[in-house]
Amino acid sequence: MNDDYGSQSVSLHSKLHGKIEVRSKVPLQNRLDLSLAYTPGVAEVCLEIARNPERVHELTVKHNTVAVVSDGSAILGLGNLGAAAAIPVMEGKAVLFKEFANVDAFPICLDTQDTDEIVRTVRLLAPVFGGINLEDIAAPRCFEVEARLQDLGIPVFHDDQHGTAIVVLAALINALKVTGKDLGQCTVVFSGSGASAIACAKLIRSFGLLGVLPMPGDILLCDSKGIVHQGRTDLNPYKQEMLEWTNRSNRSGSLADALKGADVFIGLSQAGLVGPEMVQSMNRHPIVFAMANPVPEIMPDLAHAAGAVVVGTGRSDFPNQINNVLAFPGVFRGALDARATVINEEMKVAAAQALAEIVLEPTPERVLPNPLDKSVAYRVAEAVAEAAQKTGVCRG
Amino acid sequence: MNDDYGSQSVSLHSKLHGKIEVRSKVPLQNRLDLSLAYTPGVAEVCLEIARNPERVHELTVKHNTVAVVSDGSAILGLGNLGAAAAIPVMEGKAVLFKEFANVDAFPICLDTQDTDEIVRTVRLLAPVFGGINLEDIAAPRCFEVEARLQDLGIPVFHDDQHGTAIVVLAALINALKVTGKDLGQCTVVFSGSGASAIACAKLIRSFGLLGVLPMPGDILLCDSKGIVHQGRTDLNPYKQEMLEWTNRSNRSGSLADALKGADVFIGLSQAGLVGPEMVQSMNRHPIVFAMANPVPEIMPDLAHAAGAVVVGTGRSDFPNQINNVLAFPGVFRGALDARATVINEEMKVAAAQALAEIVLEPTPERVLPNPLDKSVAYRVAEAVAEAAQKTGVCRG
Repeated sequence: MNDDYGSQSVSLHSKLHGKIEVRSKVPLQNRLDLSLAYTPGVAEVCLEIARNPERVHELTVKHNTVAVVSDGSAILGLGNLGAAAAIPVMEGKAVLFKEFANVDAFPICLDTQDTDEIVRTVRLLAPVFGGINLEDIAAPRCFEVEARLQDLGIPVFHDDQHGTAIVVLAALINALKVTGKDLGQCTVVFSGSGASAIACAKLIRSFGLLGVLPMPGDILLCDSKGIVHQGRTDLNPYKQEMLEWTNRSNRSGSLADALKGADVFIGLSQAGLVGPEMVQSMNRHPIVFAMANPVPEIMPDLAHAAGAVVVGTGRSDFPNQINNVLAFPGVFRGALDARATVINEEMKVAAAQALAEIVLEPTPERVLPNPLDKSVAYRVAEAVAEAAQKTGVCRG
Repeated sequence: MNDDYGSQSVSLHSKLHGKIEVRSKVPLQNRLDLSLAYTPGVAEVCLEIARNPERVHELTVKHNTVAVVSDGSAILGLGNLGAAAAIPVMEGKAVLFKEFANVDAFPICLDTQDTDEIVRTVRLLAPVFGGINLEDIAAPRCFEVEARLQDLGIPVFHDDQHGTAIVVLAALINALKVTGKDLGQCTVVFSGSGASAIACAKLIRSFGLLGVLPMPGDILLCDSKGIVHQGRTDLNPYKQEMLEWTNRSNRSGSLADALKGADVFIGLSQAGLVGPEMVQSMNRHPIVFAMANPVPEIMPDLAHAAGAVVVGTGRSDFPNQINNVLAFPGVFRGALDARATVINEEMKVAAAQALAEIVLEPTPERVLPNPLDKSVAYRVAEAVAEAAQKTGVCRG
C-alpha cells in the first residue's frame, strides 16, 4: 500500500512540478493597475512602512504568511536527507496551511544544519513573514533553534513538537472521558524521549499547572536504554531536565517495566516495540497511542485484543488518527488573527481543548475529529486567538 | 498625480493585506489526495530527490520559482528604507513575474545590509529556488553580491542592472534605426555611473564584442563630479575599471561638456540635470533616454524642442516608457525553460534584440513594445532560452 502511494506520489509530483504556486491577488489589465500595484504608487506604501513600521503587518504579505522552515535533518521518519529532499514535505505543509486555514505558507529549506546559522537565517528572513513554522529539524537542535527565536516578535513554533503535543493531548482528554480515568491517578508512559515526546509531556504538565486537568500521577519517559531515571549518566540535558518533574519515584528498567500498571501509553518511537503482554500488564482500560510511522509500536488489533480500550495511531487507515494537520493550521490561523507575538502554553492548551470539544460524544473509535474536516482549523483558531488575547501576547 | 497614485496605492494595499497568495495546485478532498500530496506518499518523493539530486528541479517548486531578494538599501528611488519597507516592491515584482511570464516568485527581504551575510543567506535559501532576482540593492554592494553568487547553479541576476540594460539596449537599437545613426560613429554619454549605468555600458560593449552592433565611437560616464576620467582620484573600483574601455580620449569636464557633439544620452541619475541647451549642443538627431524617476533629467517636450528625435523616460504617461517589466519576466522564463545555470551576456543580448524586434516599424514615438503587452515576455523568453542552449549553459 505504502509503496503504491509512493510511486503514485512521485508521478503526481513529476506532473505538477511543485504543489504550490504564487498567485497575484491584483489584476494587471491597464496602466492604473500597474501604477497602484507597482510604480509609482507603491513608493508611498514603502514610505508609509518606513514611517510606521507596525503597518507592515497590514500592508504586506506579512499579514497572512508563514515560513515553513526546515534544515532537512529529520524528514518525516526518513532521517537526515538534507534541504532539497525536504522540499516536497514543506510544500505539502504549505498546501495544508492554505487548504485548511487559508494561511499563505512558503517552504524555506536551508542548506545548513548549523544551529547558529539556522537561527541567524530565520532572523534575516523574518521581515516578510508573520510566523515561522519550524519543521523536521532534528533534536536536540530543534529545541535551541526554537528557544532562541522566541524574541522575534512573530510566533515561532516547531510543529513536530507542539503540533503533535496538541493533537495527542486532545486525544488524551477524550480518551480519559471514554475510559472514565482520572488523570490524577494515571501513570503516563512515553516510548521515545525525543522532541515530540518531551513536548507532549510538557503540555500535559501545562494542563496541570493551568488547572485544566489534574497533574498526572506520574510520567515516565523511556528511550532505547529504558526508563529515563536519575541513575543514568548518558542523558542529554533535555532528558535530564525532564527528571525535575517526571519519574518521581525514580523507577528504572525497561519499557516493559514502565508499562506495568500504567494507564496511558504514548508511543513516539519505533515499529513493534510493544508486545501484547505489555499492554496486558497495564492498569485496567488502558489507553494506547502508538504513533510510530508507518508501522506503530503495536498494531491496533493486537492492542485491543490485549485489553486496550482506546487505540490511536498516526495512520489514516485505522480509527483515531493522530495527525498534526488537526492542529498547526488552526494554531497559526488563530495566532495571525489575534496578532500574537508568540504561541504560548495557554494557546497550545486552548488548541487541544478546542480540538477535543469538537468531538461531542467521544467513543473508543472516535476521540479526535476527522483530519479532513475543514471546519476544525477555524474552531481551533478561535480558541487560540482568545487565549492569546487573554494572556496579553498580542500586538497593538 | 503621483500623490494620488500614492494614497490610492496605500488604500489598495491596506485592503489586500499582501498582493500575492500561495495557492495549492492539488485538491485535498479525500484521504487519497492527502496520502499523495503529503504523507505517506511524499516520503518516496523525498527519497527520490535524495537518491537523484537533479530531480529536485522536476519534482518541486524549484522548477518554476524565483526569489526576489532585496536588502532594502536602494528601494526604487527612495534610498535605504530597510527590509520591511522593501516588501511592497518585492511583492509587486512577484505579481509581475506571475502575470507576465507565469513564473512563481516570492519576496525575500533580508534584515541585513552586510555583503557577506546577504551572500551567505542566499546560498542557504537556494535549494527551494530555480533562480534569484536581486533587487534594489545599493551599489557597489550589488556588484559583489551578484558576482559571488554566480556559482550557485541557478541564474542570479540583479534586475536594476541587467533588466534596465536590456530594455535600454532594445530602445537604443530601434532609436538608431529611427535616426539612421551608426553606433560605430556615436558617442554615448551616461548621466549617473551607478549600478544600472555601468550595466548598460557593459551591455553596449557586449553587443560590440559579439558583433551584433558596432562598438560605439566612445562611451562617457558622468557622475556628480562630472566625467569619469583617468585624472580623478575619487573613483570607486567599479568606475575605475570602466576606464579600461570608456572615455578613450580621456575627456574631462562636466556633463554639459560630455554632451557636446554626443549622439546618445542615457540618464540614470536625477531630475532636471539636463537643460535644453545641452541637448542643442549634441550631434544632430540626438537620442535622449532620461530615466530619472519620477521626474526625468529633462522633460520630453523640452528635449524634443531642443532637437531630440527619440526621447524615452521611465514614465508611463509619455511615449517610449523604458520599463524593466519588458525584460525580467521573459529573461527568467527563458532561463527556467532552458534549465540555464546562469544568465550570461549572450542571453542578455538576445533578450534586448528580441525586445527590439517586437516593434516591427520603430518610430520616434515607439521604440519599445507596450509594457502591458503580455506576449512580450514569451518572445523574450524564447530568445533567451535559445541563447542559453547555444552557449551551453544548460543543465542535463
